[in-house]
Amino acid sequence: MSKGALALLIHGGTDNWSPERWKARFDEVCRERRVLPLAEAKRAAGEVHYAAVWKPAPGELAGFANLKAIFNLGAGVDALMADKTLPDVPLVRVAVDDLTGRMAEYVVLHVLMHHRQELYLRESQREKRWAPKSQWPAGAISVGIMGLGVLGANAAEVLARIGFGVAGWSRSARTIQGVECFHGEAGFEAFLRRTDILVCLLPLTPGTRHVLNRQVFSKLHRDSPMGAPVLINAGRGGLQNEADLLSCLDDGTLGAASLDVFAEEPLPKESPFWTHPKVVLTPHNAADTDPDEISNYVARQIERFEAGDPLENVVDRGRGY
Amino acid sequence: MSKGALALLIHGGTDNWSPERWKARFDEVCRERRVLPLAEAKRAAGEVHYAAVWKPAPGELAGFANLKAIFNLGAGVDALMADKTLPDVPLVRVAVDDLTGRMAEYVVLHVLMHHRQELYLRESQREKRWAPKSQWPAGAISVGIMGLGVLGANAAEVLARIGFGVAGWSRSARTIQGVECFHGEAGFEAFLRRTDILVCLLPLTPGTRHVLNRQVFSKLHRDSPMGAPVLINAGRGGLQNEADLLSCLDDGTLGAASLDVFAEEPLPKESPFWTHPKVVLTPHNAADTDPDEISNYVARQIERFEAGDPLENVVDRGRGY
Repeated sequence: MSKGALALLIHGGTDNWSPERWKARFDEVCRERRVLPLAEAKRAAGEVHYAAVWKPAPGELAGFANLKAIFNLGAGVDALMADKTLPDVPLVRVAVDDLTGRMAEYVVLHVLMHHRQELYLRESQREKRWAPKSQWPAGAISVGIMGLGVLGANAAEVLARIGFGVAGWSRSARTIQGVECFHGEAGFEAFLRRTDILVCLLPLTPGTRHVLNRQVFSKLHRDSPMGAPVLINAGRGGLQNEADLLSCLDDGTLGAASLDVFAEEPLPKESPFWTHPKVVLTPHNAADTDPDEISNYVARQIERFEAGDPLENVVDRGRGY
Repeated sequence: MSKGALALLIHGGTDNWSPERWKARFDEVCRERRVLPLAEAKRAAGEVHYAAVWKPAPGELAGFANLKAIFNLGAGVDALMADKTLPDVPLVRVAVDDLTGRMAEYVVLHVLMHHRQELYLRESQREKRWAPKSQWPAGAISVGIMGLGVLGANAAEVLARIGFGVAGWSRSARTIQGVECFHGEAGFEAFLRRTDILVCLLPLTPGTRHVLNRQVFSKLHRDSPMGAPVLINAGRGGLQNEADLLSCLDDGTLGAASLDVFAEEPLPKESPFWTHPKVVLTPHNAADTDPDEISNYVARQIERFEAGDPLENVVDRGRGY
């Protein structure tokens, strides 16, 4: 009997993420298993046992009656969870060291950019002004990380090694060496009150939508050498109330922001974020995952699963991540 | 008998580094010792046993006949060493954790900026283009640090923690965990051949002047995902041959550079570095030292010295650092 097929439901992404490139990679790591691009998979829907997906169209997965597991090719599953027709089979998210490392690169880069007054220094260079300002050390700045999963915990450790005061907040209690951990609603305010640079790595769920709003920004610590607190959002656009974010940047409640994610992506040309002098904008590329690493990860998980072992990193549908 | 006076020979710097601020700080930490600003010190030259200096004028120190030690308020002593009239007493450089940490901040920030394609991303933002390029992980990039003193070794460790391949080169052999160490002339070429991002933290001495030249740049590794190697110079301007540097940026031998230091500072308005599209320029502020930390450090050293203990971090005049 032939092994159940793996369907690829992959839309968009850079060249490196084209459906053809994914097909070639999965062919290499899924020996003796058919790997079917979307059109072929639809024609042989009954033989598809697994789906590897990236931004599938709503309803697309419902067409596969014999599905046993769905593998999301990125870390965030909020778009999938919003699909009411999603088959009730295990949904697996990516959790590979490669992704964890990349997110730390992004977070450390953007924390350092704000801490080291990069917006000011680039402006000085454009204006040919040799005008160093006093620079405080990392120890003068408290970074607060919302979301202490694998990604948040690793970024926190690197920032602490560099010398920042680091705190973290998560839904349930965590312990990370050298990081002051807060949790739950009860700990949220104290966490905000001591935070100069707020880094958001939360998953997007109904409970976290628009958690980054004026009320939250106005509770951040205001007496740092930076003058005003800074937001770094590398989670999801839906986490931020964008009207609040803009008005808080404009009235000084926030001093600056690094934004990798937006309510609408690609960000429309008319968005004021593009030209806002206090915004450092990146096109949702904080933590690309390496296709080779992920295809290996998915192939390994399928093998484990067929050998009777449980799948790893299965999304808790009640919790939403 | 009253204690020998401490003279302050301090020129320039930001507000935080004004002679008045330094006088106030030293008054606080040098109990029972007179702290004399330059004009007063000159009037009481014979009573001056110690000098704390920042960019003293050549010949200025020669006027103090009873000097027992000179404390430089920064890490680099190349300007002092060039003063042929410098009294032959121990010259102490600053070596405080604060300075070490700040240099790592600068190095990590600029390595990450080039690695994460920040020049491209800022240009994209200015042009309102949502156009993520493929991004490689830190592990795909080899960072090579020239100078493995306290500053270089610490920066190397943080970069290795982030996931970069890190090598170092120094005059004499060193061992740093997780860092491939090369040394001496014999090891220089192999070090360059594997380096994608070259970070220079060397002291400026007659032997290191213009060590950053076309011959060196042309030996750097060229097959990284960045396309061409990158230079980060946070040492001294005299380390770089600026004509070579410009022509290597222009002909693609170098892909980009972060420059904190220049042959002439402040950098003249007409310098092509200001507007070069491949240059990230900072006004010699990679590692400001914290005046409170340094004044404490100097006061502690004087106390130790008067108690009969040897001074620490004394410059080897033959070696030049």
